[in-house]
Amino acid sequence: MPRVVVDVMLKPEILDPQGQAVARALPSLGVDRVRAVRIGKHVEIDFDGAADLDQAREIADRLLANPVIEDFTVRVE
Amino acid sequence: MPRVVVDVMLKPEILDPQGQAVARALPSLGVDRVRAVRIGKHVEIDFDGAADLDQAREIADRLLANPVIEDFTVRVE
Amino acid sequence: MPRVVVDVMLKPEILDPQGQAVARALPSLGVDRVRAVRIGKHVEIDFDGAADLDQAREIADRLLANPVIEDFTVRVE
Amino acid sequence: MPRVVVDVMLKPEILDPQGQAVARALPSLGVDRVRAVRIGKHVEIDFDGAADLDQAREIADRLLANPVIEDFTVRVE
Repeated sequence: MPRVVVDVMLKPEILDPQGQAVARALPSLGVDRVRAVRIGKHVEIDFDGAADLDQAREIADRLLANPVIEDFTVRVE
Repeated sequence: MPRVVVDVMLKPEILDPQGQAVARALPSLGVDRVRAVRIGKHVEIDFDGAADLDQAREIADRLLANPVIEDFTVRVE
Repeated sequence: MPRVVVDVMLKPEILDPQGQAVARALPSLGVDRVRAVRIGKHVEIDFDGAADLDQAREIADRLLANPVIEDFTVRVE
Repeated sequence: MPRVVVDVMLKPEILDPQGQAVARALPSLGVDRVRAVRIGKHVEIDFDGAADLDQAREIADRLLANPVIEDFTVRVE
């Protein structure tokens, strides 16, 4: 089935406490070469018929991301 | 900086109410050809030095995903 | 405005990796007396007119929680 | 076990697309008297020994909430 993937991330200048929690937990796993972790949303939209990138962008803009604090990318998979 | 991306999704047989809410909201945007929406996590891990896929897999397995209900993919970006 | 609050948590027997990440990060903050952290959703539903607990329960059951893996509580606030 | 609950919500002036998706899906369930839905995090912190509200506030401030875009409340349960 035609699928569009939307990835939504906080803008780079916005602090991501959830990612920071993971980063700070890494030494307890013996992982010491990670500089940063950021956590966003990965959304899979399955279309009937052809994938529609314009519709996917509108879905992202209205229902998946807050454009003031988040960026998103849209791609056909 | 070397980056590993981990995408975490509920397993296909596990109901995703957050994705269902988006799917059910689409007719109100005039979008009517979407069959399903599923929402997971998109995690970006930035490494100092070379990206380490094995470490990224361990991070995913221990701190990002519950393997009973979720699947994840790991890739260098 | 009449408000109903729905709290959604993973069932106690389901591992919560996001909560574990926070718990494992605590020693780096000097916090050492926390036994467990679990992270769920807190949903505020504002009604026009009287709050409707039955409707809130149906919303939770259909759009907020997956009853196989999550429990929820509903209360008027 | 002594438990502290932290509820984290986007500030009122910040758009919450996840809550909007739920609100827009409600007519499809026959629910028509909901004015708004907002979705945040509900975090349960279990302490060994006495609950420590100051530590819980620090955990919230550092690992659970971004104070630029989110507010949180802390209470003993």
